[in-house]
Amino acid sequence: MKQALLEAQKAGDRGEVPVGAVVVCKDRVIARAHNLTETLTDVTAHAEMQAITAAASTLGGKYLNECTLYVTVEPCVMCAGAIAWAQTGRLVFGAEDEKRGYQRYAPHALHPKTVVVKGVLGDECAALMKNFFAGKRR
Amino acid sequence: MKQALLEAQKAGDRGEVPVGAVVVCKDRVIARAHNLTETLTDVTAHAEMQAITAAASTLGGKYLNECTLYVTVEPCVMCAGAIAWAQTGRLVFGAEDEKRGYQRYAPHALHPKTVVVKGVLGDECAALMKNFFAGKRR
Repeated sequence: MKQALLEAQKAGDRGEVPVGAVVVCKDRVIARAHNLTETLTDVTAHAEMQAITAAASTLGGKYLNECTLYVTVEPCVMCAGAIAWAQTGRLVFGAEDEKRGYQRYAPHALHPKTVVVKGVLGDECAALMKNFFAGKRR
Repeated sequence: MKQALLEAQKAGDRGEVPVGAVVVCKDRVIARAHNLTETLTDVTAHAEMQAITAAASTLGGKYLNECTLYVTVEPCVMCAGAIAWAQTGRLVFGAEDEKRGYQRYAPHALHPKTVVVKGVLGDECAALMKNFFAGKRR
């Protein structure tokens, strides 16, 4: 999750909502990504989406059932759907997102076999988001 | 929707689940796409996702609030999330997807302003899917 936080910081540094994601497979980081929706003018360029695409490319297969996806903020509905299609083995996220998180809109969207761990470095992940939006309002 | 059906047929012809999508803005087709998940080894490569990315690229902006997305099959949760983030003005789909469609898992996932029209050329869109999966089982 510390690696994911570094990615989130990179997003924040370029004016993107600071969300970072990392995919780990067999103790090896196989993908890192951060939110690039503004840079790419593309709403689908969330950190998780890019990490999933990159991880599948590295593995040469669509499914991430032996992988863990670490992401600093609770995935949205779109990303939860992608995490499900990839049959991701484990999802670990930091801060909850009460407004846009999948738990509110699609609590059963994930693959039933995906193990979910919440709140890892949650305060640090949430602080990055809060500081970003506080800066925007200044 | 006929254009979206042509896209779906292209997907089927290359062994992909036959789903096609088209984005129309001010009476002009600005994006066409079909499912490429197998070809790209990428679960995020649904027709809608690619069409949204392509349309935003054409317009030079993230939002599709003045656009209509035509898709042959009811979007999944992932695609519904993307359609929401893009603030898509209108969503028109053909066949319903009771197993994977967003209406089952995330009925409130779309942007509240998105107008939804269902069942357009629904029989034709559904027939493409049925024939594809019947062929797979042979």
